[in-house]
Amino acid sequence: MDYSKKALEMHEKWRGKIRIETPCPLESRDELSVAYTPGVAAPCLEIQKDPEKSFAYTRRGNLVAVVTDGTAVLGLGDIGPEAGMPVMEGKCALFKAFAGVDAFPLCVRSKDVDEIVHAVELIAGSFGGINLEDIAAPRCFEVERKLKERLDIPVFHDDQHGTAVVTVAAMINALKVVHKEIGEVSAVVNGAGAAGTACTRLLMALGLRNVVVCDKQGALCPGEEWMTPAQAELAEITNPERKRGTLADVIKGADVFMGFSAPGCVTKEMVGSMAGDAIVFACANPTPEIFPDEAKAAGARVVGSGRSDCVNQINNVLCFPGIFRGALDVRAREINEEMKLAAARALAGIIPEGELSDENIIPSAFNKEVVPAIAAAVAEAARETGVARA
Amino acid sequence: MDYSKKALEMHEKWRGKIRIETPCPLESRDELSVAYTPGVAAPCLEIQKDPEKSFAYTRRGNLVAVVTDGTAVLGLGDIGPEAGMPVMEGKCALFKAFAGVDAFPLCVRSKDVDEIVHAVELIAGSFGGINLEDIAAPRCFEVERKLKERLDIPVFHDDQHGTAVVTVAAMINALKVVHKEIGEVSAVVNGAGAAGTACTRLLMALGLRNVVVCDKQGALCPGEEWMTPAQAELAEITNPERKRGTLADVIKGADVFMGFSAPGCVTKEMVGSMAGDAIVFACANPTPEIFPDEAKAAGARVVGSGRSDCVNQINNVLCFPGIFRGALDVRAREINEEMKLAAARALAGIIPEGELSDENIIPSAFNKEVVPAIAAAVAEAARETGVARA
Repeated sequence: MDYSKKALEMHEKWRGKIRIETPCPLESRDELSVAYTPGVAAPCLEIQKDPEKSFAYTRRGNLVAVVTDGTAVLGLGDIGPEAGMPVMEGKCALFKAFAGVDAFPLCVRSKDVDEIVHAVELIAGSFGGINLEDIAAPRCFEVERKLKERLDIPVFHDDQHGTAVVTVAAMINALKVVHKEIGEVSAVVNGAGAAGTACTRLLMALGLRNVVVCDKQGALCPGEEWMTPAQAELAEITNPERKRGTLADVIKGADVFMGFSAPGCVTKEMVGSMAGDAIVFACANPTPEIFPDEAKAAGARVVGSGRSDCVNQINNVLCFPGIFRGALDVRAREINEEMKLAAARALAGIIPEGELSDENIIPSAFNKEVVPAIAAAVAEAARETGVARA
Repeated sequence: MDYSKKALEMHEKWRGKIRIETPCPLESRDELSVAYTPGVAAPCLEIQKDPEKSFAYTRRGNLVAVVTDGTAVLGLGDIGPEAGMPVMEGKCALFKAFAGVDAFPLCVRSKDVDEIVHAVELIAGSFGGINLEDIAAPRCFEVERKLKERLDIPVFHDDQHGTAVVTVAAMINALKVVHKEIGEVSAVVNGAGAAGTACTRLLMALGLRNVVVCDKQGALCPGEEWMTPAQAELAEITNPERKRGTLADVIKGADVFMGFSAPGCVTKEMVGSMAGDAIVFACANPTPEIFPDEAKAAGARVVGSGRSDCVNQINNVLCFPGIFRGALDVRAREINEEMKLAAARALAGIIPEGELSDENIIPSAFNKEVVPAIAAAVAEAARETGVARA
């Protein structure tokens, strides 16, 4: 179904998908005197004495900035900061609808890492967390790294880590279905950008050892000259057998394929060359690397994609609302690896083991258990790793 | 009445005075597909073709950033960006409650003009207007000037221009009450900061000629060595008789006094030395230069202050909601002098001439005619001066 016409009509009718509202009555002089001058001086002075009080007396404690430079918006690419705003507003709407998190969209008119970092750093005192969104790789890695160093509130690039958490959750359950152990499978990740890199790293934190990451030019392997610095770094810790060649070469015999790359780049022949009981997650959006039914026909056992009209939808909306809900609830300083893994395990755990099957490895985005389960697990992991402040 | 305790309780209960809400339903896959992926790609692509479309397809067209560096918050001074947030949130709440404008608070962690300007410039594509707030003079003049040069959306420093518009409106009516003409009165403005400077300039645009501006050291006059560059510039166009001396010296014989300065700095003797039918606006907040009843007892005829418990409250909330409402309604590129004067005249005009009196020169903030009247006048002035885009 084509949603374009309906979407244009609805966006124009709404004139955007966010509203700023106030919960406090402002209809009398007395109410004005409490919410504004002179009463407002009291919370101002309390925060001056202890800036942490801003989490109690302002909305900061529940407020996330959704920040983009508009360079990697959906599958549309570099469409500019203003054009990225409908996606950012949509993200903010999802934050509120799914987890009660107040989120505000900010598009930054720069492609320079330090400019983006500095702008966000300067306004960070207004927010309890920063969700980076649709910033192209490899810039996104640097922006995130520098912001994490400089800020004491969570900084989370959803295209990397949200995708990784949901993929890992789906993988935990898919491996149970096919009775394979993560430490023993061989995996191929296609797409060495934001999502592929983060997903590879998070799966390795979970125990994956034998993984080869491919980009357009082929397998990442130490010594390949076409790699970016970020890819070279990833090559060092992956590809233990130092395989070289194309995706078609390295996918042969693999137990697991995960794509965060380009529409249609995986053929039936490639899937057919994988090991028995193969797992194929084709997450390119909106058109996957190979459609799930084709992958299935070619011999894969468990398939997943980003599409809502196919089985096993691997969708970030399953995790980012709950992750920030949990982080904000305990006023976490950061979102670390332990918190991400806790989120992935909690998400996987929503489906009882007895109900797991080829076609049921990940819950629906509308499953009401998802957000509370992830939030509780993330908050607990934050406490255990000493990054919770409340 | 002391509102501190009540304000602390209420701020903690609300955990801030703003909320981000979404008007669009997100409870089914279909609704998600219209508001988010894949439908959202359509408005993104339309905005990419024409960035102006961001005013139609996102909230931008109704959205104002309330920006502060926390250096001149209320009468509290430089309390820091986080501590300024309760005031900024209050301002946002007023924008919504009084004029339906969505406003979002941003505190900027810098006192450097170029850093503040650059940060705001980089995120301006998310907003339809910028309201600068509680930034200390003289930095506020530079921040505003540079942002106006670089942005094609309204930039308005409320402490300067909001105060000026409301004061000018009150002055228009006060002069009618005492039957004096603006071109013929002698006026003294005490306080050569943001508000005093803007008010002086706007009154001069309305026809005031004989005005002396004082700061702590005395009357601004060309050649005085203690003046800042901004004050020296103001001295050149004011004080036509080149008076020197203290406030007590220059207030003698004046028809009008306007204070934007410090509590209690005007004595009964000073008011007593003014001309007959004197007008005294003592706008220091929350404690005025002289309390209205004292000024009256000392011989002033029309008095005004910022206080809600005295007659003739001169309060910015009377104008900033309507000014931005009008500017956003016609997608104005800027808020110029003509638009400010139109706002002041519209505000003054709310009170029918027959009802004007010593104690009734300015409407109540809760008068429902205020915002529509100002918005209409501002929109019309924007069209007439060629800065309207819709």
